[in-house]
Amino acid sequence: MGADPRFFLAHGPIALSAIAAAAGVTLAEGEDRLFADVAPLGDAGPQEVAFLEGRRMLAALRETRAGAVLVAAAAAKDVPAGCIALVTETPQLAYARVAALFHPRPVPVASIHPTAVVAPDARIGAGTEIGPYAVIGAGAEIGEDCVIGAQAVVGGGCVLGARSVLRAQASMEYCIAGAGVVLHQGARVGNEGFGFITTKAGEHVTVPQIGRVILGDGVEIGANSCVDRGAGGDTVLGPGTRLDNLVQIGHNVKTGRGCVIVAQVGIAGSAELGDYVVVAAQAGLVGHIKVGAQARIGAQAGVMNDVPAATDVVGSPAWPARETLRAFARLRQLAATKRDGTSGGTP
Amino acid sequence: MGADPRFFLAHGPIALSAIAAAAGVTLAEGEDRLFADVAPLGDAGPQEVAFLEGRRMLAALRETRAGAVLVAAAAAKDVPAGCIALVTETPQLAYARVAALFHPRPVPVASIHPTAVVAPDARIGAGTEIGPYAVIGAGAEIGEDCVIGAQAVVGGGCVLGARSVLRAQASMEYCIAGAGVVLHQGARVGNEGFGFITTKAGEHVTVPQIGRVILGDGVEIGANSCVDRGAGGDTVLGPGTRLDNLVQIGHNVKTGRGCVIVAQVGIAGSAELGDYVVVAAQAGLVGHIKVGAQARIGAQAGVMNDVPAATDVVGSPAWPARETLRAFARLRQLAATKRDGTSGGTP
Amino acid sequence: MGADPRFFLAHGPIALSAIAAAAGVTLAEGEDRLFADVAPLGDAGPQEVAFLEGRRMLAALRETRAGAVLVAAAAAKDVPAGCIALVTETPQLAYARVAALFHPRPVPVASIHPTAVVAPDARIGAGTEIGPYAVIGAGAEIGEDCVIGAQAVVGGGCVLGARSVLRAQASMEYCIAGAGVVLHQGARVGNEGFGFITTKAGEHVTVPQIGRVILGDGVEIGANSCVDRGAGGDTVLGPGTRLDNLVQIGHNVKTGRGCVIVAQVGIAGSAELGDYVVVAAQAGLVGHIKVGAQARIGAQAGVMNDVPAATDVVGSPAWPARETLRAFARLRQLAATKRDGTSGGTP
Repeated sequence: MGADPRFFLAHGPIALSAIAAAAGVTLAEGEDRLFADVAPLGDAGPQEVAFLEGRRMLAALRETRAGAVLVAAAAAKDVPAGCIALVTETPQLAYARVAALFHPRPVPVASIHPTAVVAPDARIGAGTEIGPYAVIGAGAEIGEDCVIGAQAVVGGGCVLGARSVLRAQASMEYCIAGAGVVLHQGARVGNEGFGFITTKAGEHVTVPQIGRVILGDGVEIGANSCVDRGAGGDTVLGPGTRLDNLVQIGHNVKTGRGCVIVAQVGIAGSAELGDYVVVAAQAGLVGHIKVGAQARIGAQAGVMNDVPAATDVVGSPAWPARETLRAFARLRQLAATKRDGTSGGTP
Repeated sequence: MGADPRFFLAHGPIALSAIAAAAGVTLAEGEDRLFADVAPLGDAGPQEVAFLEGRRMLAALRETRAGAVLVAAAAAKDVPAGCIALVTETPQLAYARVAALFHPRPVPVASIHPTAVVAPDARIGAGTEIGPYAVIGAGAEIGEDCVIGAQAVVGGGCVLGARSVLRAQASMEYCIAGAGVVLHQGARVGNEGFGFITTKAGEHVTVPQIGRVILGDGVEIGANSCVDRGAGGDTVLGPGTRLDNLVQIGHNVKTGRGCVIVAQVGIAGSAELGDYVVVAAQAGLVGHIKVGAQARIGAQAGVMNDVPAATDVVGSPAWPARETLRAFARLRQLAATKRDGTSGGTP
Repeated sequence: MGADPRFFLAHGPIALSAIAAAAGVTLAEGEDRLFADVAPLGDAGPQEVAFLEGRRMLAALRETRAGAVLVAAAAAKDVPAGCIALVTETPQLAYARVAALFHPRPVPVASIHPTAVVAPDARIGAGTEIGPYAVIGAGAEIGEDCVIGAQAVVGGGCVLGARSVLRAQASMEYCIAGAGVVLHQGARVGNEGFGFITTKAGEHVTVPQIGRVILGDGVEIGANSCVDRGAGGDTVLGPGTRLDNLVQIGHNVKTGRGCVIVAQVGIAGSAELGDYVVVAAQAGLVGHIKVGAQARIGAQAGVMNDVPAATDVVGSPAWPARETLRAFARLRQLAATKRDGTSGGTP
């Protein structure tokens, strides 16, 4: 069973040959069948294409009723008779391409909803769709083929590149964004950061935050995530960087390209990440540290120091992964021994 | 002093007999007094009903000026003279019932605000109230006696059961919800999950997320919490499950009935929780794990493995509670000893 | 280079004498130069004023092209020739004052946008600006010179003091707020807290939440942060207390004045903080504890017990900082030793 047609119109049927081409798979000779949709391995029927990555669902593969399955070579032997094996080194990536055939990103309907409030000097590119109750501020420049969702807010002076999307109730201010940028529901970009200085008497005096947010091409900001503008100078997310939901990015953070920031991570002001850094869920990074390219920060880690490139760190405070895991194991052993060294309880 | 009448209209006066009936309490013979409201134990006056659960506020009980107090039998002797003791095994539950007499959930005013944008083919049930600037999408079906708050968004095709509530600025898309569902302010249901696959060259390719969110009867989603729709197949929250604020639920998570997910918890994709699981504040669960019914996960825990039913786990990584607490105690002892085994500093 | 004029109009030029006066700096005799803006130390040009606090950017100071720099006495010798050293004990505080000369808080444009929905009996103070699609409820009272941003919601009966600001899509309900209060984008104040009692059968019964939120003068609530109203009695944030983004404040929490609650902190119900408490990012506090004045809670701490005044605690569970750091060091040593006591691996 494919995607629920209440919500998802599958753009089928699509021929196996087109599917294979999108997937980068070589087909054996045979009839060019038609397929209706993609579906998960356990749910798919003869008119649907599924995929298997890894070994977790191998049992499901043997029992699948899918018409075709994208699989790695090692799993091809487990594809049931009557099901077409589409062999690829990267099944999930191939699935992404095939699914996009059936469920392409919707083409904007070039229109400005009559209830949208658009400043007279705002510039809206050709093909862009602006939804009900959206607010576009003075001097804003929105590129071609964008989608501005219901009640989304684009602040005065902002620039949004072509093919970008603001989903319902997202807001951006003090922001220059490239092409193909996506702000998910309730994302908040360009807020005033947490910048103040406290007098001896305990009064907090706001420091005007007069920097911007720069979002590279293809940046995505998850639902209800927050990206503060710079205090002076900018907060910069490099091209292709993706934030999950409920992430906090402090003022003047800079990331390289293609970083992955998972849900509920917090990165404090002026921290700098190189290219392709991965920060797992709920981790926290203190301000002003430098994280080298391709470093990987573990879930719930507390990173208090610079992290070298291509290094994995876990724990709070975060240490290189191997040391931390050994420390936890040792702690567990100790918990199982009494103070006099004799064993006690479950090791 | 009862609730502030600026905000809360108490539906009184209500007779003691009705209060006792709602509370499930047997009254001794006596005059059927009238009461004006409920109030906290320390603030209540002779026309108000208070409650005491546990021992924390026992001193406040002895000094209360409340006209009546819901108490457990053991505390009845501490109820001051002139104050009516309403004895029940479950004082706080009884209080919930009594408070609801004075402060019932508001009845919707059947109406569609003239500024609401409602798709022509959307179906709105009898008695439902739709507030200013709400947006109801094509083919949506909203049941009877619902409340759609100011600027709330119901996406195309969504189904919302009777007596449900979307508070101001909540949004739901790709969602089938049962009866009595509540989305609190800024809750985001049905967002596109964090689904992408990364090519060797480091480019993140979005995987179309073509599943839905299924919310059982009585599910509540806290303010600014996020529930991502399924990648393929659904994200499912079982009947009665409640999420606090700022919670993240990843794609394809499934919970049983009556789960309690406290503030700022993150549950990664495809994790499955049984019935009545409690996840305390700020805990994180990795993807694809299974948590058995009635398990309890401690605050700030980092759960990386399956959790058996009816098991308590704490810590990051999370272990069974007893082991973790012993490990922390042992670590504390060790911190107090020097490397040569002699004692140093505060144990 | 100063702030981007797309977004920030600098209110210059401003004379050095005025700058010095705002900064509380004594000037040597000399020409009263004009300055155009403030800028970061590394970017500033001859018409801009920069600052240096601490030693982190000392190298940048030696090479700055700024026309003037606010510095502490110890750094005055590093100010390049041709650059005016403005010597002060508190450079960053002085910078905040000077930056506010060039970038003062915008004066509201007294106006009610034609699309704003304002209840007939709501009272709006002189000079207040209400933006597009804002919703002001019955009986609300908004003071003078406030700014209510696009789509912000002020619930019925709420009181907001003079010179307060609700940024786009913020919402407040059941709230009495003082003067100079700021709710940042998507902040949610007055939500129904996570209050329910569970029956033996596992059903969660909502406890009506009939308290309010009281915000003192100058309180700031960060973007997408949530402050739940009291269950009975109020949630109270003392004057000058500031919340960063994505913070959760549970029902009936009380803080003293000037507390600093950093991003993604969670404070559970009925916890009480004294004056000037600092809670660092991602920390969690359990309910009903008392944190004394000027205590400091470390990032990611898990505070499960009362904290005495002026005490620093770190870790989860949180202990006094010195003990925790010693414990971590000891754990690290142990990780480097084998079970038989011999050394192994990197210490």
